[in-house]
Amino acid sequence: MYNPLLLPDLRVMLAENDQQALAEFSRVLHPAVTAEVLEGLDSAEVWQILANCDLERQVEIFEFMSLPKQVELVETRDRKLLSGLLEEMSPDDRADLLARMDQDKVEELLPLIAQAERSDIRKLLSYPEDSAGSIMTTEYASLPEEISVRDALDRLRSQAPNRETIYYVYILDDDRRLHGFISLRELILAKPDAKLASIMQRGVLSVRVDQDQEFVAQEMARYDFLAIPVVDNQNHLVGIVTYDDILDIVQEEATEDAHLLGAVSPLEDGYLETPLITIAWKRGIWILFLSVMALFTAGVLNYFEELVNKAAEITGQYTWMVLFLPLVLASGGNAGAQSATLVIRTLALGELTRKQNISLAKRELVIGTMLGFCVGMVGFVAAYSSLFGLEIMEAVTVAGTAFLIVVVGTTCGAMFPVMFKSLGMDPALMSTPLIAALVDVLGVYIYYNMAFFLVGPPSG
Amino acid sequence: MYNPLLLPDLRVMLAENDQQALAEFSRVLHPAVTAEVLEGLDSAEVWQILANCDLERQVEIFEFMSLPKQVELVETRDRKLLSGLLEEMSPDDRADLLARMDQDKVEELLPLIAQAERSDIRKLLSYPEDSAGSIMTTEYASLPEEISVRDALDRLRSQAPNRETIYYVYILDDDRRLHGFISLRELILAKPDAKLASIMQRGVLSVRVDQDQEFVAQEMARYDFLAIPVVDNQNHLVGIVTYDDILDIVQEEATEDAHLLGAVSPLEDGYLETPLITIAWKRGIWILFLSVMALFTAGVLNYFEELVNKAAEITGQYTWMVLFLPLVLASGGNAGAQSATLVIRTLALGELTRKQNISLAKRELVIGTMLGFCVGMVGFVAAYSSLFGLEIMEAVTVAGTAFLIVVVGTTCGAMFPVMFKSLGMDPALMSTPLIAALVDVLGVYIYYNMAFFLVGPPSG
Repeated sequence: MYNPLLLPDLRVMLAENDQQALAEFSRVLHPAVTAEVLEGLDSAEVWQILANCDLERQVEIFEFMSLPKQVELVETRDRKLLSGLLEEMSPDDRADLLARMDQDKVEELLPLIAQAERSDIRKLLSYPEDSAGSIMTTEYASLPEEISVRDALDRLRSQAPNRETIYYVYILDDDRRLHGFISLRELILAKPDAKLASIMQRGVLSVRVDQDQEFVAQEMARYDFLAIPVVDNQNHLVGIVTYDDILDIVQEEATEDAHLLGAVSPLEDGYLETPLITIAWKRGIWILFLSVMALFTAGVLNYFEELVNKAAEITGQYTWMVLFLPLVLASGGNAGAQSATLVIRTLALGELTRKQNISLAKRELVIGTMLGFCVGMVGFVAAYSSLFGLEIMEAVTVAGTAFLIVVVGTTCGAMFPVMFKSLGMDPALMSTPLIAALVDVLGVYIYYNMAFFLVGPPSG
Repeated sequence: MYNPLLLPDLRVMLAENDQQALAEFSRVLHPAVTAEVLEGLDSAEVWQILANCDLERQVEIFEFMSLPKQVELVETRDRKLLSGLLEEMSPDDRADLLARMDQDKVEELLPLIAQAERSDIRKLLSYPEDSAGSIMTTEYASLPEEISVRDALDRLRSQAPNRETIYYVYILDDDRRLHGFISLRELILAKPDAKLASIMQRGVLSVRVDQDQEFVAQEMARYDFLAIPVVDNQNHLVGIVTYDDILDIVQEEATEDAHLLGAVSPLEDGYLETPLITIAWKRGIWILFLSVMALFTAGVLNYFEELVNKAAEITGQYTWMVLFLPLVLASGGNAGAQSATLVIRTLALGELTRKQNISLAKRELVIGTMLGFCVGMVGFVAAYSSLFGLEIMEAVTVAGTAFLIVVVGTTCGAMFPVMFKSLGMDPALMSTPLIAALVDVLGVYIYYNMAFFLVGPPSG
């Protein structure tokens, strides 16, 4: 999303190549705002503007730009001019950028970067997508436990310029194993002569490098941490994940879940930044799949209608059935959509124990029964009223089907996401339209069978 | 969500009233974990455990508990024993708690609290729900601009114990107007003799006290702030909102949007903490409303079927129509669900300009047309195939209706949330099932009219 208000002014400065004004523009605004404005320009123009600020500011602005824009900027730039930018970038943002580019292009860029940074990049790129390792930064502040608070503050001063945060400091042994933790606030309040070992917190909470980013976000939200340490199997500190990245991840995961629930394969970037054809494809495959499901319902309907039509030539006894098809089809889907939504959001906010799963299933069954009863009553009253004027057993068929299908919809909507989760899949895969489609088939089946049972078999 | 693993041990300690073990239990674990375990106990037990730790720890644990549990704990406790806890709580958490309680109970508690805190509470409670004022804390660190860095660090040391954060420091004049900002990191790196006025950042980004919490969250995510200052109309600093509260708000807003999209009135607390009857009610009103909408579709269907049945006695020419009703009804709803989901998430992540709204409408129209064409083709092929064996004009009717209804569904799904937003309502009110219900009525109308046009009018 870019800010279009400043664009006209900027275009004038660019046309006149007013370097002083351009430098001023990049310096005065918050880099996040500058980045938003630059999203609306082409690569050559962006580089023309960035050329007017120092490397540090360039990197700040660059890191606030969207990933597709970053890729575009890097790919259109002379490689030799990129080394400073790539070296200065924070390791997590740089890894995100390189992970988005073609492997060939990355191999072209790597030789431009200093050896130490290069192995850091290869390391970060090796972690699986959406793992703690893929979102962490390696620029954390660390100290040994045997020094004094005074020395600690001095060392932090020298570490500060290239650390993502110095507010949380991790205490490591010579082998970089995580032994303790101290906040800058505690350091400032402590006596200058105290040893870190005597004031640090032990038993630090951490996440493992291969754990899922959603779990990392849940832990951060649970403990209100500013950053969480990431360790390997031997408790070596390998990085930290900071609150600002967590905020992005929470938004990203919520968006992904929402898209899946709405039967759209999740978009990687924002809606407006994603090419139209990509969106059409990510929707199209679902729409087509759901259409085929609807044809399956049509097939079931066809089977029953053929039975019915033979009888109808004599009696016409089932012509009322079509009228309540929309109610029967919609109710199951609606109840299922509600349950799936509630359960998927609950799962997104934290793990459930087995006991909680059972209590969830029980609750949904009770709620489904209550809702089914209500919808059944609405169906009965409407069907039996002079509005539609059905016979009593016909109205009971409508009510009974509505009741059953709401119970079935609720159960499917609640239990499928839990099942998906326990199979290691994303619970949000159980989209609202998919539940509706599954329940539709069942709805038609229940509807006709109940009619044959209550009103009489189609042999007339 | 509570952690049930430690409960059995804890019950033993409680039964034996093993004070040493209970004190150990509350001290060793992170207060967030202790709070989770205590959620599973009744109020008397929780108070028995909290009695074994000092006030500071009590407050830490208490603040990590869920709001319904906090209310329960306060309401079952002798008022006189609550004053310490209430005075020590951080202002934002305390205001949240009191806002949840009955007005009468709050009036009983207020006299227990010191005068200064009391007016702070009344002030915080006066801000509208979900405004910046309702989520901010008044415990921020502030300094005047004329002092040196050395003095600043000394003053921060004395402020630190009762400030939510000292990592961001706001520079105020005598009238508490916001003039600048400096981070603790910058303070630590600055020369001890430098005056704050010479190193502070001016033109601080802030939010107004009456702005929506969703906007505050968007600003925090945009700028990667640890905290954002909240000012009144005259730029007086009245509070700050910190990153940990923003994380909760982002989760809360995502949950609210998901619930609305799934046609559930948003739950205030977690699914498992909400009473069954509340959930049933918040779903029931939507389910009933949607059932009535489905009856409306039934009414339209009834009208057309009566026309058709008269003709059918002679020709039977419309009996095929019911078979493709599920496809027609589902397709519009599915396309609408996709569009609504994409648009609502886009709106949740930031405002759209008018230009972006227009580009969004254009994109959705193009995508809707493409999807409609695909679904139409599927419908045509299925209908014309030997599977269903329809006449060509009948198959064209199915395809044409599917096409039109997908376009209509896409347009409604995309535009209604934008309209809702511009009317100041929550865009997520346009739930997936509601779009489906609206599109169903139109679908039936289009279906029959197209049949009458292409296959022939029902007069036969």
